Amino acid sequence: MSFGTIYGVGLGPGDPDLMSVRADRLVRGAKHVAFFRKAGRKGQSRQIVEGMLADNVIEIPMEYPVTTEIPLEDPRYNEALSAFYSDCENQLFALLESGEDVIVLCEGDPFFYGSFMHLFTRLKDKAPLEVVPAITGMSGAWTATGSPITWGDDVLTVLAGTLSEYDLTKRMAETDALVVMKIGRNIDKIRRALKTAGKYDDAWLVEYATMANQSVNKLSEVEDGITPYFAIIIVHGQGRRP
Amino acid sequence: MSFGTIYGVGLGPGDPDLMSVRADRLVRGAKHVAFFRKAGRKGQSRQIVEGMLADNVIEIPMEYPVTTEIPLEDPRYNEALSAFYSDCENQLFALLESGEDVIVLCEGDPFFYGSFMHLFTRLKDKAPLEVVPAITGMSGAWTATGSPITWGDDVLTVLAGTLSEYDLTKRMAETDALVVMKIGRNIDKIRRALKTAGKYDDAWLVEYATMANQSVNKLSEVEDGITPYFAIIIVHGQGRRP
Repeated sequence: MSFGTIYGVGLGPGDPDLMSVRADRLVRGAKHVAFFRKAGRKGQSRQIVEGMLADNVIEIPMEYPVTTEIPLEDPRYNEALSAFYSDCENQLFALLESGEDVIVLCEGDPFFYGSFMHLFTRLKDKAPLEVVPAITGMSGAWTATGSPITWGDDVLTVLAGTLSEYDLTKRMAETDALVVMKIGRNIDKIRRALKTAGKYDDAWLVEYATMANQSVNKLSEVEDGITPYFAIIIVHGQGRRP
Repeated sequence: MSFGTIYGVGLGPGDPDLMSVRADRLVRGAKHVAFFRKAGRKGQSRQIVEGMLADNVIEIPMEYPVTTEIPLEDPRYNEALSAFYSDCENQLFALLESGEDVIVLCEGDPFFYGSFMHLFTRLKDKAPLEVVPAITGMSGAWTATGSPITWGDDVLTVLAGTLSEYDLTKRMAETDALVVMKIGRNIDKIRRALKTAGKYDDAWLVEYATMANQSVNKLSEVEDGITPYFAIIIVHGQGRRP
């Protein structure tokens, strides 16, 4: 019996019509579909493929033990997640070992800040593995703003909102085009950093890019302090153009 | 008679199987297909859709008047390109005005350093326009290296090789994960900057990512000084991982 293959399949920013032809084919033909989700939720990646899965598909939800209950700096956060990813590894490895292929559904692009990467490092030397790149959430977001993100020599910087205010401010000030991800409860810090860096008035907040509930607003016009996880901040480059 | 719509359709990094479901549908159903190319060449974006176009499709090649013959700094470069994009605008506008839809084929993602952006700015207020995002060339490239590009809080910086050696070096030194595009004749300058920034030994050169002639090498092991336009340099982030 030969090993099954594990596929890390990027689904793109959310609109199923923006999945790649290859991802679409793999998802529709899948026998085993695994995906991460927050406990008690349907799961964003699972939501994207709603209506596409075969009738007899076997679903393998992998539920995060913690998301924001424990601060990132707390060593227990890393311990809990590490044990969780090992459990997922073992569960999927048993399937692969029995000769079954497994499709892992990934929001955005699997190799760009994706949870799949933690399965990838654990399984890549143990079983055949294939990664299908996808449209990133940030591509979906800048397309939603209706303006190009980078021109000519523009430098693009992608920042996680979890960085310190000092780091955010410094890097925001030095770049031409900017993307900020992982916003959530970091939004007030991010607003302050953008103001200090002189980019607040040019910042756009895109929520649920390419999805039915997509919203695009100047960040300065959004009063509400809390944004969901599916939010991306965009500042467009203004580089050379003929 | 109502106006036709102009579609800026991202084709992704090169493998037609990585086009989005929407792009695939638009390309196969297109009546008028426009694309940029260097004079005397087939055109990279046209090459990607080989075998996909309808039999009676009308092709509109738009040939760059200059590419590397005139230095970027020379005002004649900008003048020549500006006149060229205006000609393209007029040609496509006549079609749109007559009620025909036009598909513009775009390598990578249309709003990420794309030539389509110059048509977009000229036509967006004159005719209905839709942009289809796509997998970027850089996603194709980091996937080809077989390692994730960004982890945890990693900062990603995307640089154009056309920047000065000073700017390249400074920004390379300060980032976690790095992508360098527009390499071409800038390769020696980019190598020096990577060395000074201490990242040369970790840099990968990916040529023709996702295409049949894809090559992935440590940059330090590639002797040849000249790389084609379809080359991307990747340095992976090494951030937090459980």
